[in-house]
Amino acid sequence: MDELKVNWFSELNNLWPGQCMSLEVEEVLFHEKSRFQDVLVFKSKTYGNVLVLDGVIQCTERDEFSYQEAITHIPLFSHPNPRKVLVIGGGDGGVVREVLKHSCVESVTHCEIDQVVIEVSKKFLPTMSNCFNDPRVIQHIGDGVAFMEKHTNEFDVIITDSSDPEGPAEMLFEKPYYELMSKALRPGGVICAQGECVWLHLKLICKVKAFCESIFPSVAYAYSTMPTYPSGQIGYMLCSTSKEIEFSNPCRVITDEEVQSMSLRYYNYDVHKAAFILPQFAKRALETNCAESSGTYLANQGSDYED
Amino acid sequence: MDELKVNWFSELNNLWPGQCMSLEVEEVLFHEKSRFQDVLVFKSKTYGNVLVLDGVIQCTERDEFSYQEAITHIPLFSHPNPRKVLVIGGGDGGVVREVLKHSCVESVTHCEIDQVVIEVSKKFLPTMSNCFNDPRVIQHIGDGVAFMEKHTNEFDVIITDSSDPEGPAEMLFEKPYYELMSKALRPGGVICAQGECVWLHLKLICKVKAFCESIFPSVAYAYSTMPTYPSGQIGYMLCSTSKEIEFSNPCRVITDEEVQSMSLRYYNYDVHKAAFILPQFAKRALETNCAESSGTYLANQGSDYED
Repeated sequence: MDELKVNWFSELNNLWPGQCMSLEVEEVLFHEKSRFQDVLVFKSKTYGNVLVLDGVIQCTERDEFSYQEAITHIPLFSHPNPRKVLVIGGGDGGVVREVLKHSCVESVTHCEIDQVVIEVSKKFLPTMSNCFNDPRVIQHIGDGVAFMEKHTNEFDVIITDSSDPEGPAEMLFEKPYYELMSKALRPGGVICAQGECVWLHLKLICKVKAFCESIFPSVAYAYSTMPTYPSGQIGYMLCSTSKEIEFSNPCRVITDEEVQSMSLRYYNYDVHKAAFILPQFAKRALETNCAESSGTYLANQGSDYED
Repeated sequence: MDELKVNWFSELNNLWPGQCMSLEVEEVLFHEKSRFQDVLVFKSKTYGNVLVLDGVIQCTERDEFSYQEAITHIPLFSHPNPRKVLVIGGGDGGVVREVLKHSCVESVTHCEIDQVVIEVSKKFLPTMSNCFNDPRVIQHIGDGVAFMEKHTNEFDVIITDSSDPEGPAEMLFEKPYYELMSKALRPGGVICAQGECVWLHLKLICKVKAFCESIFPSVAYAYSTMPTYPSGQIGYMLCSTSKEIEFSNPCRVITDEEVQSMSLRYYNYDVHKAAFILPQFAKRALETNCAESSGTYLANQGSDYED
């Protein structure tokens, strides 16, 4: 983990060639290979505890709330009455924690492939993983695709909180997985999946959005800022089996009092609406589902994932 | 420059302790100490040519458009008829290039303290510095504060494109400089200044906003995403001597045709409005001008600039 300098963790990766975020390390708390991936937890100097899978930062205590709140509350406030929610991935617990803040939610089924991630999160990320004790949580250890194959017409909202499309999460960026999700939804259901960053992976985002549009009548892409993710932002793919749902105009409007009572630090009503406003180059690319035609020149220079 | 690894430039700095962005270097094109600062230009592997002052990335060819378009078009479209514009700093030319895209602009006075920055930009950042040949540009080499002391009631828009408040730009984050700017404006004039990032420097932003509100009747803070700036975003402080100006609701609305004809890759009408929508923790802090009351806990952990 000291690829760039002793006592710094550096996130070198071919998914974002030529650039690298580093965090200063105070202490390595856990480092082991699980059955599925390399799992590292360290105490950083200025970002609290940090979870890293296969060399990629998944969350830090300092800024995790941005990602967790966006990937959770954008889909949940886009659904009129979410009662049964499914979370795929997100073994750290952050998304489940946010889902449970909605009083209408009756159960959260949580499917994580890697038990080790859950265990280290319980130990080192308690403000995220405490939620696993909630009686509304049903935990299932296993593969997301296999889980989805066995469930139809069951969930109001499905959130896929995955790592990048290399390693255990690869299939979660493919069309068959989205088809399975569409079948696992109840009528009018909503899905939201980690959708990568327009500054780095516009081609991949266009490809995913295109196949989503062949499955779902409503599709939209949103983003939030996120300092410790590559290039400082991360996106979300939102789809619904209902054509009535307009994601950028949430059907349930959060009040200022709810923002406070739900202890939100990133999300509010205006943030929800603004999350769908993309820089011109990304807007154009996503309107045409074609990164090449966006005229971004250097903005898409860093190589995309292989198609 | 190889602090973290040979052939990588690493932006280690006490302004953002414990975190660091690195870019892979193909070739150092220029490296000298000018009278004012350390000036480095390198060709990066995936971000084009990169300008670095005192160890801090100022712009890369790949993502500079986000910053230049936001810091320029947000103030210019907030003014009903900007004819005389002043740019302080921005020796790379990017802001002047964007100002010149407004046909109503009759002259752009450009005041940069460091001739060396202008020279290296002409040589290595031609898509930014080409604009210096435009007959509407009046160039002045000198200190921004000293320049401002000699000008009153002269400009419709003043843009301060400064580096961070250490080194030559330090005074550009102080109240006396903002008072001078308010006097250098014509009635109804608008200023916009580089305003740092809410994820890193919320205390400083609150402090600057508070003294701006003691000088100007209209004050607002906006941001844009910017992958190669620390934490991936950067903010802008906007002020006007007119209380009629509502920054988040531009008085001149750009059409889709203008977005195209002005070759904009970041800015459009919706982006303008959304630039003022901040994450809840930052919104609360700026509403009260007090980072402490924002309840951000870890979000403001990285030490702020000294007050």
